[in-house]
Amino acid sequence: MGNKISIGLLGLGVVGSGVIKLIENHQEKLVHQLGADVQVKSVLVRNLDKQRDVDLDRTFLTTNPDDVLNDPEIDLIIEVMGGIDEAREYILKAFSAKKHVVTANKDLVALHGPELQKAARKNKCDFYYEASVAGGIPILRGITEGLSSDRIRKVMGIVNGTTNYILTKMDQEGLSYEVALKQAQELGFAEADPTSDVEGLDAARKMAILARLSFSMDVDLEDVEVKGISDISLDDLKYASQLGYTMKLIGYADFRDRQLEVNVQPTMLAKNHPLASVSDEYNAVYVYGDAVGETMFYGPGAGSLPTATAITSDVVSVIKNMLLGVTGSQYVDPHFNKELKESDKCFGQFYVRLHVKDEVGVFSRISALFNELNISFKRILQNPIIKHEKAEIIVVTHQTSLENFQTALNHLNDLDAVMETKSYYKVEGDAEK
Amino acid sequence: MGNKISIGLLGLGVVGSGVIKLIENHQEKLVHQLGADVQVKSVLVRNLDKQRDVDLDRTFLTTNPDDVLNDPEIDLIIEVMGGIDEAREYILKAFSAKKHVVTANKDLVALHGPELQKAARKNKCDFYYEASVAGGIPILRGITEGLSSDRIRKVMGIVNGTTNYILTKMDQEGLSYEVALKQAQELGFAEADPTSDVEGLDAARKMAILARLSFSMDVDLEDVEVKGISDISLDDLKYASQLGYTMKLIGYADFRDRQLEVNVQPTMLAKNHPLASVSDEYNAVYVYGDAVGETMFYGPGAGSLPTATAITSDVVSVIKNMLLGVTGSQYVDPHFNKELKESDKCFGQFYVRLHVKDEVGVFSRISALFNELNISFKRILQNPIIKHEKAEIIVVTHQTSLENFQTALNHLNDLDAVMETKSYYKVEGDAEK
Repeated sequence: MGNKISIGLLGLGVVGSGVIKLIENHQEKLVHQLGADVQVKSVLVRNLDKQRDVDLDRTFLTTNPDDVLNDPEIDLIIEVMGGIDEAREYILKAFSAKKHVVTANKDLVALHGPELQKAARKNKCDFYYEASVAGGIPILRGITEGLSSDRIRKVMGIVNGTTNYILTKMDQEGLSYEVALKQAQELGFAEADPTSDVEGLDAARKMAILARLSFSMDVDLEDVEVKGISDISLDDLKYASQLGYTMKLIGYADFRDRQLEVNVQPTMLAKNHPLASVSDEYNAVYVYGDAVGETMFYGPGAGSLPTATAITSDVVSVIKNMLLGVTGSQYVDPHFNKELKESDKCFGQFYVRLHVKDEVGVFSRISALFNELNISFKRILQNPIIKHEKAEIIVVTHQTSLENFQTALNHLNDLDAVMETKSYYKVEGDAEK
Repeated sequence: MGNKISIGLLGLGVVGSGVIKLIENHQEKLVHQLGADVQVKSVLVRNLDKQRDVDLDRTFLTTNPDDVLNDPEIDLIIEVMGGIDEAREYILKAFSAKKHVVTANKDLVALHGPELQKAARKNKCDFYYEASVAGGIPILRGITEGLSSDRIRKVMGIVNGTTNYILTKMDQEGLSYEVALKQAQELGFAEADPTSDVEGLDAARKMAILARLSFSMDVDLEDVEVKGISDISLDDLKYASQLGYTMKLIGYADFRDRQLEVNVQPTMLAKNHPLASVSDEYNAVYVYGDAVGETMFYGPGAGSLPTATAITSDVVSVIKNMLLGVTGSQYVDPHFNKELKESDKCFGQFYVRLHVKDEVGVFSRISALFNELNISFKRILQNPIIKHEKAEIIVVTHQTSLENFQTALNHLNDLDAVMETKSYYKVEGDAEK
């Protein structure tokens, strides 16, 4: 066809370099698929002189965003610079200049996705962001196209590789949280300041994006309740394993009766749950649909080339749309108004670990307390802790409302015999043992 | 938009009924996504009077294919009648009448996919068949769109639910093949004549389709070498487990140096392989791409509603294309000419179980034989079988060519000390124990 498509890149870090390598290495496949010649024409960088890991003519580099955003020959912008405000400004400028945008920027999409999407449509531009969730896994396409005819009820994701790596090492090698985190940092799986990962904020961004697309509503980042992994103890991992569970940081989104529950929290998954065997830095997203039942998408959640694959696949989609003249058509306004579930509508099973006085009748008082709230037990473990004249009690409840469980926790703390509530976690699935 | 899309259905078995239910139940979502009203207008059946599980006006039913294929109001045909010759004829007629086609017919697509695809394009029609591989899992979209920018090297699939169910029961509950098969038949997971499933033919059809799309070449069904599960013994499952493997019926397609290897065979997977934990009737497809690395798509491989989900998602794609005026544009001619690998280019690890005379020097003779062929051992097990004055030897080799391994098997049979080669299987991955 002889078409030539010129791309502008905002940012040339590891992901940007990966995109350039991929476009170069897979040129033959791209030309074959698209009948078009795809070239990176200019790249916005902060420092022209920095040593780069890619083979790129230096004259392509610029520190002036307008060289990329106002170049009439450029059809498509790839934003891999990260950050929020500048990135948002440049993308809006790109849309005004009728340029399509592909981004990997989960922070930006989580915060400003709906606004950017509307700006894109207004300008008949495409806006794709597959790489913003779960790196190389084509999960957004899976949800918006593969399962487009189904009614998705629940999405559960291991969407942060850092925390999954840390939990895997703690669980399989008995490393403490601190040692596992340090190892993750040394391997480049965790940043020097790991807060965003280990406190679940990164996962929350991805869950906001996933919930939006799965349930067709505007979900804000602050709608996602978040609990991180930094206070998980090896004791809880050990008990989880004894009871047939594996602890994972799970992003959870559930939509029922037009009400949404969305959160990120450490969760004990039954070992036979499809997500339970996802280990190390891998990601996976489990989707439950009314008709399809259980599906799962598994793969690398980060990394230069996997992320670049998702970006470049988006680029291929945009170019196809350009050649067919149908850009800007993929976006559908949200179908539902957002309504969040109150805690009496959020249901789950729960694990709770208590230290109690080692004396007669303690367990029966605790059990009476749960009984009054209509919470029944699925599993009970009790061990004496000889040295300290106390006992450890672990219970796993059957399904109950979060409200009910929180009431139980409050009442437990009022009981004289209960010395300390050591920990509690949500539980998913039915363990076989 | 007020568009009305009329659909004709060929066949009204379990999948056809599922499609009708899904289109009815999810009408609101479809209207919202498409801005169009989607209705099933007529249905080809064999018997007008048969009791049906769906709520459908009887006047919609017909036994005359022309009522569906020649109705000018019908835009799109869903073929769920099964079989080869009639289905092919009707689909070609539909394309001639400029009607788009969605099918779940893996037998037909495996045998005549390239021909039908060309007929579709000639008539500017869409031809989609997501449901033909792995039921509800959107794997074809994953490969053709999600990973479109990557170079796929290897595809491994558990793409037959019947055999996966049987192997799971044999492995986890120690049932014999016969008992597990009977159970699968009683549960409706296996047909009265299970040949096509248990001998791997069904999986082969899906692998032909997967290989075509993954590697962009015309792959014929007869290119797929097939070995089924009917002679797998509990002994081999037991040894697999001892060695850290799980036996699965694996469809394998590998493309390197522009040469293809594609087959279906029982394979011992390292337990840490993502496919190893796929159990019961579930399916999963593992895809290895140069850039993305390992990904896996998991879900229900069959069933009325999961299959209907895939079909209806295809219908949504076709209708979007219709509304945008871009039907017939998704097909790209194969990029590569097919060239199959000879057995000296097919590499793998292999498990072999031998019964040998229980006498001095036997193992060293066997080991010398492998040594001469440059095949080294990864694992060795030797057990005496007291009663019969023989011993059982199990070896797992390191990577070697299939040609080399077959030569070794032949030489083993010539050895006087080897009484019988009980079994041999391909091995994938590195077991941890």
